[in-house]
Amino acid sequence: MTTFFKPDPALDLVLEREIDVPRELVWEAWTTPEHIKHWFVPKPRTITACEVDLRPGGIFSSTMRSPEGQEFPNVGCYLEIVPHARLVWTDALLPGYRPSQKPFFTAALLLEATKSGGTKYTALAIHRDEDGRTQHEAMGFHEGWGTVLTQLVEYIQQTMRH
Amino acid sequence: MTTFFKPDPALDLVLEREIDVPRELVWEAWTTPEHIKHWFVPKPRTITACEVDLRPGGIFSSTMRSPEGQEFPNVGCYLEIVPHARLVWTDALLPGYRPSQKPFFTAALLLEATKSGGTKYTALAIHRDEDGRTQHEAMGFHEGWGTVLTQLVEYIQQTMRH
Repeated sequence: MTTFFKPDPALDLVLEREIDVPRELVWEAWTTPEHIKHWFVPKPRTITACEVDLRPGGIFSSTMRSPEGQEFPNVGCYLEIVPHARLVWTDALLPGYRPSQKPFFTAALLLEATKSGGTKYTALAIHRDEDGRTQHEAMGFHEGWGTVLTQLVEYIQQTMRH
Repeated sequence: MTTFFKPDPALDLVLEREIDVPRELVWEAWTTPEHIKHWFVPKPRTITACEVDLRPGGIFSSTMRSPEGQEFPNVGCYLEIVPHARLVWTDALLPGYRPSQKPFFTAALLLEATKSGGTKYTALAIHRDEDGRTQHEAMGFHEGWGTVLTQLVEYIQQTMRH
């Protein structure tokens, strides 16, 4: 049996980091619209809307607003939900699994508990072809997802961990 | 909560029929390559290869051969597997959820037991847009899927039901 989520360096992008917050809180922050709004895009950009229907086929959407006031809606569909461990969604499908007009990538978030009570955090972007990977890299995947992860950890430490 | 698999007449195509074979055998015939080869395409076309990895993200592929000897490979990805009840896959994703080059439709097979021991069989083709639906209709969706369902029932009655 093939193991999924082994990145292909030609096609995929990976962000991996050990973070000092437990994976249960990372999971909660990733799957609750009220939390997502606080950390999901690099500041000073903001999230003005977010919808989560946490089941395979369910919607995962967010609208990003630039400092200039332009809005960028994103709509995707959850594929796999393994609480505290694995969250997979794609923009190749709309909610209810309808093929979308502008497929770009599938994302997999993989969370593992570390011995020290933190989380080994792996975010994987799975593209259609090398062009997709190159384009995502040029859009600033590593910096963007890295910044957002730092924001996520700070948000959890300041707000969720009591 | 939205209910999935409610067809949109503008975008989707549906084949619904009550058939006189139990849904457990329909499920087995739909998920076993050795069975699939016998009924999956309208005769005299044949299936020369078929691969099934029955889990979300797993491959569902088949190669159809025309009477003239031309081969047409299809590769898709399973999305939902509810034994004896619901099978969902798409060609918008490759195995491992990688977005595909030529997304066309998502298919959902819904099976319900009838009181007489048969099956209410619903096959749903979910398209990106009206063009997709129109194209699939013109390709002969209703006749093709209808013929194949007749072949499936005959195959089960003659081969699997002892």
